Amino acid sequence: MAEKDFKDYLNKVNQFRINKETTIQEIINNFANTGFNAKRLAKACKIYESMVNNKDCVKFFGLAGAMVPAGMQGIIYDFIKDGFIDVLVTTGANLTHDIAESLGYHHLQGDIDIHKIDDSVLYQEKINRIYDVFLPNSVYEGLEDFISTLEIPDNFMPVSKFLKFLGEQLPEKSKSILKIASKRNIPIFCPAFTDSGLALQLGFHNRELNLNHFKDMLELIDISWEAKSSGVCIVGGGTPKNFIFQSQQFCPNSAKYAIQITMDRPEPGGLSGASLKEAMSWGKIHEKAEYSTIISDATIILPLIYWYLKSIIN
Amino acid sequence: MAEKDFKDYLNKVNQFRINKETTIQEIINNFANTGFNAKRLAKACKIYESMVNNKDCVKFFGLAGAMVPAGMQGIIYDFIKDGFIDVLVTTGANLTHDIAESLGYHHLQGDIDIHKIDDSVLYQEKINRIYDVFLPNSVYEGLEDFISTLEIPDNFMPVSKFLKFLGEQLPEKSKSILKIASKRNIPIFCPAFTDSGLALQLGFHNRELNLNHFKDMLELIDISWEAKSSGVCIVGGGTPKNFIFQSQQFCPNSAKYAIQITMDRPEPGGLSGASLKEAMSWGKIHEKAEYSTIISDATIILPLIYWYLKSIIN
Amino acid sequence: MAEKDFKDYLNKVNQFRINKETTIQEIINNFANTGFNAKRLAKACKIYESMVNNKDCVKFFGLAGAMVPAGMQGIIYDFIKDGFIDVLVTTGANLTHDIAESLGYHHLQGDIDIHKIDDSVLYQEKINRIYDVFLPNSVYEGLEDFISTLEIPDNFMPVSKFLKFLGEQLPEKSKSILKIASKRNIPIFCPAFTDSGLALQLGFHNRELNLNHFKDMLELIDISWEAKSSGVCIVGGGTPKNFIFQSQQFCPNSAKYAIQITMDRPEPGGLSGASLKEAMSWGKIHEKAEYSTIISDATIILPLIYWYLKSIIN
Amino acid sequence: MAEKDFKDYLNKVNQFRINKETTIQEIINNFANTGFNAKRLAKACKIYESMVNNKDCVKFFGLAGAMVPAGMQGIIYDFIKDGFIDVLVTTGANLTHDIAESLGYHHLQGDIDIHKIDDSVLYQEKINRIYDVFLPNSVYEGLEDFISTLEIPDNFMPVSKFLKFLGEQLPEKSKSILKIASKRNIPIFCPAFTDSGLALQLGFHNRELNLNHFKDMLELIDISWEAKSSGVCIVGGGTPKNFIFQSQQFCPNSAKYAIQITMDRPEPGGLSGASLKEAMSWGKIHEKAEYSTIISDATIILPLIYWYLKSIIN
Repeated sequence: MAEKDFKDYLNKVNQFRINKETTIQEIINNFANTGFNAKRLAKACKIYESMVNNKDCVKFFGLAGAMVPAGMQGIIYDFIKDGFIDVLVTTGANLTHDIAESLGYHHLQGDIDIHKIDDSVLYQEKINRIYDVFLPNSVYEGLEDFISTLEIPDNFMPVSKFLKFLGEQLPEKSKSILKIASKRNIPIFCPAFTDSGLALQLGFHNRELNLNHFKDMLELIDISWEAKSSGVCIVGGGTPKNFIFQSQQFCPNSAKYAIQITMDRPEPGGLSGASLKEAMSWGKIHEKAEYSTIISDATIILPLIYWYLKSIIN
Repeated sequence: MAEKDFKDYLNKVNQFRINKETTIQEIINNFANTGFNAKRLAKACKIYESMVNNKDCVKFFGLAGAMVPAGMQGIIYDFIKDGFIDVLVTTGANLTHDIAESLGYHHLQGDIDIHKIDDSVLYQEKINRIYDVFLPNSVYEGLEDFISTLEIPDNFMPVSKFLKFLGEQLPEKSKSILKIASKRNIPIFCPAFTDSGLALQLGFHNRELNLNHFKDMLELIDISWEAKSSGVCIVGGGTPKNFIFQSQQFCPNSAKYAIQITMDRPEPGGLSGASLKEAMSWGKIHEKAEYSTIISDATIILPLIYWYLKSIIN
Repeated sequence: MAEKDFKDYLNKVNQFRINKETTIQEIINNFANTGFNAKRLAKACKIYESMVNNKDCVKFFGLAGAMVPAGMQGIIYDFIKDGFIDVLVTTGANLTHDIAESLGYHHLQGDIDIHKIDDSVLYQEKINRIYDVFLPNSVYEGLEDFISTLEIPDNFMPVSKFLKFLGEQLPEKSKSILKIASKRNIPIFCPAFTDSGLALQLGFHNRELNLNHFKDMLELIDISWEAKSSGVCIVGGGTPKNFIFQSQQFCPNSAKYAIQITMDRPEPGGLSGASLKEAMSWGKIHEKAEYSTIISDATIILPLIYWYLKSIIN
Repeated sequence: MAEKDFKDYLNKVNQFRINKETTIQEIINNFANTGFNAKRLAKACKIYESMVNNKDCVKFFGLAGAMVPAGMQGIIYDFIKDGFIDVLVTTGANLTHDIAESLGYHHLQGDIDIHKIDDSVLYQEKINRIYDVFLPNSVYEGLEDFISTLEIPDNFMPVSKFLKFLGEQLPEKSKSILKIASKRNIPIFCPAFTDSGLALQLGFHNRELNLNHFKDMLELIDISWEAKSSGVCIVGGGTPKNFIFQSQQFCPNSAKYAIQITMDRPEPGGLSGASLKEAMSWGKIHEKAEYSTIISDATIILPLIYWYLKSIIN
C-alpha cells in the first residue's frame, strides 16, 4: 500500500459559529479545526486531557513567570488539588509570592499609563512593580517575621524537602500552592532557589543553611527514570523548563506528551523560546510525542486549559 | 479636597477559581481583577460592551491578518450580523479568502512540522501556505471564473461601492463577510485594494478599471466627522488601523473607545505594534478614551470577545 | 555517488575575536560562522552583494515602517544613489515624512520614560509621537502649503507617475528619497497611497483626483515578468512586501535572492512576519532562492548592510 | 528660573550618511541621533563607556542564553580580559558549552530549513540542536572524562569557588571564559548551577557534592553592598538578571548604569522582558540611573558594543 502523502493529513478549516449556549468544550473543539494559535490551544487541551486520562502518566509541570502576582494562584492550586500535576518545578519568586498571599498579604493591580505611575515615585513609596501588578515592601517584613519563627529541621536537606516543610508551616486554610502540594505529597522542585526573596530572607536568618540542590537534581532524574509514561506542561520556560527536560533527556520513557505556553521567540536561541520539536533532538521529549506550543500570555491560556479539563473530566 | 493619589487606584488582585459551572461572563469578570494580558482582555470586553450599549457610537472595525483562512469568517460574519460593526476596514487578502469560501472552496489545516511539509513541494503541488493553513491554487481559477462573469457598473466607482456590488453577486446563503455587509448596508473600506489577488484578477479582467480610492478616503472622513461618538476595534494593525485612525485624527469626536489585538511590538516604531496611548498624541483616539491592547493572537481573542458580547447582550 | 547527508553541511562555529583594526567586512565574515541572527545578518549581506554583482538582477526593495522619522532617510537615499535599488515599494507614511524633511522640517527624538512625556500633553502641544520620535503638527501645514502649489498634470495618472512628478517638485539639493528616485528614474510604487497624510492633503486639495492604482499593479507585474533575474529586500513587511510578492508570484523568473528584516512573528499568520520559506510555496520566491530573514530592528540592520555593501563594492 | 519642559529635551533627528571610511565610533555616534533601537544601542555603548571610565564602578555582567554555542565565547573572553567585567553571573549551560570548546570540541552551524534537518533524525544521530547550532552527544562523553579526573577540594564550597577551581583545571591556552575569569580573579556566580549538564555530570561523579548556593547569594550581596558605584549589563535575562538585581536591591549604591539586551516582551510579566524602569521601583537600579534596553539578538549587539568599547578605550 502506498505511503500516505502530506496532503492526506490536510483537513478542512471549519468556519465555526458561537452562540449564547456555546460551552468551553465546544469552543475548544471548534478551535481544533482552525489555524494559528487557536488550533495550538485546542491541541494543548487535548494533550493535557490525554495526560490526565493516562493513569501511568507522571505529569511534570514547569511554572516560571509571575503567575501568582497576576492572580493565577487559585488556578495552580486547583491544578494540584484535582490531580493534574504530579511534580511541580517552579521559581523562588513564585514561591515567595505564594507565601505572601498565604500570610494574608495581597498583590495589587493598577494601570501604569492611565494613573501615570512613575517608578521612582514607587521606589519612594516602597511599592515594587511587576509590569501592572504592585507589591508593597511591607510584604517582605511579613515574610521576614514568618521566616524568623521557622525551626529548620536540617540545614542540609534537599530544597524540595525544605519546601514540603515550609508548606506545612503555612496556615491550614490557605489556598497556597506550597500548602496543597505538601498536603497531597506533590514534590516541588526549585533549581534556582537562592535566586529569590524567600531564599534571601532564609540566608539572612540562618547563615549555616546549605540546602542541597544536587540531591533534588538527582531525585528528579530518579522520578523521570521510573515513570512508565511522562508528560510535561511548561509555563513560560526558564529554569523549570530546563530542569524538567534535563531529567527527561536520558530516560527510557521520555515525555510522550508536551505542552508549552510562552511569548518568547525561538530565533535568538534562548531555551524559554525554544520549540518542543528542538527538544526532540536532545531526547527531552519522545520522538513520537504529541506536542503543542501556544504563543500567548499564560494568564489567558492557563485558565482556559483548566476550564476545559474541569468541564470534561469526571 | 485632596487630589487622588495613584495608590487610590490600586486594587487587590483576586486569586479566582474556576469550576464546571463557570460561564464566560464570570471568566471575564475574574480576569478583570488580575494582571498582564488577562486583565487587558477583560478590559477590552467591557469596552466593546460599552460601545454596543452606546446607541450613538459608530463602531469602526479594522481587520488585518489572515483571519478567514484561520477559520474566523463565521465570527466576523456574526459581529456584523449582530450589529457589533458599523464600518469595516480590511485588506484585499481577507476579501479574497472570504470570496473563496463563499464560492464553495475551503482552506485546509495541517501541521508543518509533523507532516514534514516542504514549501518547494507545496509549490510543485500548487498549494499555497499561510503558516499552518493551506490553499490550493485551484481556488484562484474559481475566483477568475467568478470575476469573468461580473458586469462592473462603473470603472470609476469607489472601492467601497464596488465591494457592496461584489457582495450582492455572492450566493444568497453564503456566510460571507461581503454578503452580510452588503445586506446590512455596512460599508467595507479597503485602502490597499490593489495589493490583493482579488484586485489582480479584476485588473487582468478589465484593463480600464480605475476604482476610486480617494473618494473612499474622503467618505470615511465624513463618516468619522459626523459620528456623535466613535469606537474602534483593531485586529492586527496594518492599513486598516491607519486608515481608521487617519479619519479620526481631526474629528470633533475622535474615538472614546479603543481596542487593539496585536502580536507586534511597539519598540521598532511600526504602526501595527504602536500603542493606543501613542494614538492619543495624534488625536486619533480621544484624550479621555478608554482603551486596551491585548498582546495575543486574534484567533483566540476575537472568539472570546464575541462569546462574551453574545452572552451579555439582549 | 551517495547523496550528501545533512551532516555534510554542518560547519564549525568559529569563536571569533574583534580588535581595534577590525573592519565591517571582517565583522560580517565572522558573523557568517556563528548562529542565530548574527549568522542571518551575514547571509543577508552576502545575498545583497550577489544581487548587486548580478548585472541582470532587478532589485526590488520594500520599505515599510517609520524609517525616515528614525533617521534612515540618508541610508535609503544612498541605497538608491549607489544603484542598490531598482524598484522601490513603500508606504504613504514614509513619503509624507520624506517630503517633510525635504521641505526643511525635522523629526525630533526624545525619551518618553525619562522626560515623562504624556500623550495627552503632546496632543495639547500639537506634537505627534512615533514611539520615541516626535513630529510637530506644523509640518502638516508646510505640507499643505507645498501641495497647494502643485499643478497635477493628470488626475488619472498612475500613483507611481505622480510620485515621479512629486519628486521633481522637491528642492534640488534635498536628500529626499522621492528626489533621488525621480532623478535616477527609479519607480516608486505605493499600493496603499490613500492611507497617508500626503494623500489626505491631496484629496482635500483636489476633489477630482483619482490616481490609478490598478495601472501600477499591472506595471509592477510587467517589470517582474520581464526581469531576467530578480531579488527582493523587504524592510518591515506590510503592503510593500505583499505588493512585490504578488508581482513575483506568476513570473518566469521569480526572486532568486530574498532578504527580509522584521520583528514580527510568523505564528499568528500575518504576512509581515511570514517566513520567506512560506513565500516559496506561492512561487513568490524561487524554489532555489537564497534567502535570509533577520529578526531585528531595521534601524540597526539596514545601516550595517549598507556599510558592508559600500565597503566591498566599488 | 522656570523648570525645563519636556520639549527642551527633544533633539533633531539626524539623517546621517555612511561611506567607505566610516568607523564604528561614527556609526554609534550617528545612531545616537536617531530613534528606536539604533538610538538605544548608541545609548548602551555610551553607558558602558562611562562604566569603564569610572574607576570606582563595579561592572556586573549577567549572561543568559546560548551565547557560546553561537560563537560569542571570544567576545565574552575579551570583555573579561580587557577589564570590562568585574563580576560575571551566568547559567550552567553557558559554562557547559565553554568547557566543551575548551576541551577541543566544537559547536556546529547549519540551516534547519534548507538542509531539511529533522529533530527525530538528529536524535537518532545523537546530535543535539540549539536553534541552528548543533552539538554532538560525544561532547558529553568528553565532559564526563574531564570531570572524572577532578579532585574536588571541598564538597561544600560555594559554587563560585568551585568554578574558580574548575577554570584552573582547563587547558592553559584555552580561550575559555572560566579560564580567563580564574586567571583574572573575576568571580563567576551561577545561581541555577544544578540546572545544567555540567552539574548533572558532577552529581553522577560525586554523590556527596553539596556546593553551597547560599554563600554565593550572600557574597554577591556583600560585593554589591561594598561597591562605591555599580553598573549592570544584562544579556538575555534569566536567573543572572534576577540574581544581580536582588543583590542590588537594598544596596546603598544600587546600579547607576544599566544595560539590557533582550528579545522578550514586558507585557506578559516575566522578568527577562521586564523594563529597566520597572527595576527602579524595586531599588534594583538607582532612581537616577542611566539605562538602555536594546530589543535585539545579543549575537549582533554584544560584538558591536565590544567593538565600540575597544575602538574608544586605550
